[in-house]
Amino acid sequence: MRINRKRLQESMDALGRVGETRGGGLTRLALSDEDRRGRDLLIGWMREAGLSVSVDRMGNIVGQRAGAEGLPPVMMGSHADSVPTGGKYDGQLGVLCALEAIRSLDDHRVRTRHPVGMIIFTNEEGARFQPAMLGSAVMAGKIPLEDAYNARDRDGVRLGDELERIGYLGPEPCLPRPFRAYLELHIEQGPVLEEERIPVGVVEGIVAISWSRLVLRGVQDHAGPTPMRIRHDALVAAAEVIRGVRDIPRRIGGDIVATVGRLDVAPNIPNAIPGRAGLSIDLRDPEDATLDRALGLLDRAVKDAARHEGVSYELEHYWRVPRTPFHLEVVGAIEAAARSLGCGYRRILSGAGHDAQYMATICPTGMVFVPSRGGRSHCEEEFTAMDDIEHGANTLLLAAASLAGRVE
Amino acid sequence: MRINRKRLQESMDALGRVGETRGGGLTRLALSDEDRRGRDLLIGWMREAGLSVSVDRMGNIVGQRAGAEGLPPVMMGSHADSVPTGGKYDGQLGVLCALEAIRSLDDHRVRTRHPVGMIIFTNEEGARFQPAMLGSAVMAGKIPLEDAYNARDRDGVRLGDELERIGYLGPEPCLPRPFRAYLELHIEQGPVLEEERIPVGVVEGIVAISWSRLVLRGVQDHAGPTPMRIRHDALVAAAEVIRGVRDIPRRIGGDIVATVGRLDVAPNIPNAIPGRAGLSIDLRDPEDATLDRALGLLDRAVKDAARHEGVSYELEHYWRVPRTPFHLEVVGAIEAAARSLGCGYRRILSGAGHDAQYMATICPTGMVFVPSRGGRSHCEEEFTAMDDIEHGANTLLLAAASLAGRVE
Repeated sequence: MRINRKRLQESMDALGRVGETRGGGLTRLALSDEDRRGRDLLIGWMREAGLSVSVDRMGNIVGQRAGAEGLPPVMMGSHADSVPTGGKYDGQLGVLCALEAIRSLDDHRVRTRHPVGMIIFTNEEGARFQPAMLGSAVMAGKIPLEDAYNARDRDGVRLGDELERIGYLGPEPCLPRPFRAYLELHIEQGPVLEEERIPVGVVEGIVAISWSRLVLRGVQDHAGPTPMRIRHDALVAAAEVIRGVRDIPRRIGGDIVATVGRLDVAPNIPNAIPGRAGLSIDLRDPEDATLDRALGLLDRAVKDAARHEGVSYELEHYWRVPRTPFHLEVVGAIEAAARSLGCGYRRILSGAGHDAQYMATICPTGMVFVPSRGGRSHCEEEFTAMDDIEHGANTLLLAAASLAGRVE
Repeated sequence: MRINRKRLQESMDALGRVGETRGGGLTRLALSDEDRRGRDLLIGWMREAGLSVSVDRMGNIVGQRAGAEGLPPVMMGSHADSVPTGGKYDGQLGVLCALEAIRSLDDHRVRTRHPVGMIIFTNEEGARFQPAMLGSAVMAGKIPLEDAYNARDRDGVRLGDELERIGYLGPEPCLPRPFRAYLELHIEQGPVLEEERIPVGVVEGIVAISWSRLVLRGVQDHAGPTPMRIRHDALVAAAEVIRGVRDIPRRIGGDIVATVGRLDVAPNIPNAIPGRAGLSIDLRDPEDATLDRALGLLDRAVKDAARHEGVSYELEHYWRVPRTPFHLEVVGAIEAAARSLGCGYRRILSGAGHDAQYMATICPTGMVFVPSRGGRSHCEEEFTAMDDIEHGANTLLLAAASLAGRVE
């Protein structure tokens, strides 16, 4: 049993046109009109494939193919939202490989003991609404539904209102429910598989992640007549923090990564000394203890920068996900599937957060990685070769079928 | 002959409500609806004062009181636009003191040989459209009208279209014409007058100003799985540039000031390594030669930062105004006026650019400064005490009357 590569490619092309950028990437922010159009298209295909489709109160879309017995389903899934000027593989590929796996079960008239289904999670990226992975966080009971509804984008628009506006505030409760397993195919978004020329990554778990936000408040003033000696420039302090964040991996070593991805300056005009700067700090490491050490260094760097420039600040470590080990049985099923295909594979740790992280807290979970060209993601240049995708999709299909129990 | 303090205060209060912010400041961006309402109010007052009012093709508003002879007019003026969350004194005060001076000539039935008038210049701040001081630059023949029309705000809106939209694309040509003198009252925006407890600054000239813009291009990627060793982060390079800009005054010493006021990051989300960062660099010094040296240091700092992070860049020094000495006769008339009032005064250099800078290239020009509390400007906290304003406005009135030649 194998997936239909041509059909998968056609679905990728069709969905990839929804929110396509001029540079060949994707801008399909969560709960935007583009997201709505992508969801509509996917639901159409899911219904065509005979799935029963429902939408829950977080806008997560769930489709299910009947099993031979009334058992908890094996779910596959990912997300369909993107970052601004992102790529056509992050998220979308996992959703379409899940759909393709189900279509392939039908092609081969495979019956399974457990139902097999798919989930499309809302707002995985965290690009429009923070934090990331809100749909799976609510499903796993980690974030209250009302808190998720009250997340606001930078224009102050509420997530709950946008869900309603695009017609995806569904009737189903968004709660933990019994799943046999959750499987997610995703691009690696890092350089390892490509560098080692291996098509399939058997993901053992996800690194620990911490998100912080920092607001620095200086004294807004005119850039001309204000002597250097009386300045309290929020952006100069921010620059020192950015350098300090870059220094954290240098000091700790190992695999830790540290990023300031967002910086907003006010009033942000050429001839005013910035009075306010807001920053995001993203820290990730395989070990929770290392992250704690990094947060200590961050606190110190912020304190020093604020003191040097004479500005005040608020620093909040507002989101933390501990290291997530995946389920041995699911990881084993994925590994066995890859082995049976005869394609190269290796065990790997995910440096990115995924919905699988939250799903792992409520059911046996695992992930399949495929290579990213140049290790690049969250950009228009994101690319994975179709040969690799085919190996990954077949791994997903065989692992899901195995976990669902084929009825011969 | 003195101005009417109560009437001036009332006009300040009324105009200060147009675009007032919750924090008691002002957001009245050039050619916005608020700017239009401010202009309408001012023109009403100018007509009530018996001035003949015209609007030129740059939206500059010119009002004139007849003189006894057909001679070039003495003009007073400033601007009515503000920066975002700016204050109620920068610009507005100069316009209202000019109006108050003319009203006071009427109160005292003073006739002058030269006509006396006032100008309200378009887009002085450069907050919405760059560069700053566009209205006076076009009037002085330094920037072609078409180039000014083609300036765009950050939403891509054209200045020319906005002029038309708010009804201020006037019929009069915007060209250098013969003026007896141009006088501008303005807040100092620096700490000198306040620190020395002196109400009136007799401005001898304006420092040299240079504006540069820099775009840094790195590699946008996912903040999680991208190891530190393969990153090219545009924001990390920007942070090094910001530190380098701050170092320029430390290395050169003296009165030079250096500011990065604007920084825009893309895609500007917590979990993507910034692929692009755009910065503004503002440099000012009393001496043109010092500015040249500073620009050399800036070039070097940018080159080093880009090399360290492995990013590419475009750096453009796109606007330069040389040091502007004011006219000896006008400076003398202002000094004589302050002396005759018996209030404290001192000679001073302006660290901020003003429309007077361009006017100085086409007619004898001078400025009157009044103190800024805490030296602060371009912020909601901007404040000047009414006692100081009264001294400044009377200085402006007497200097203008003297240059216009009172007919006894």
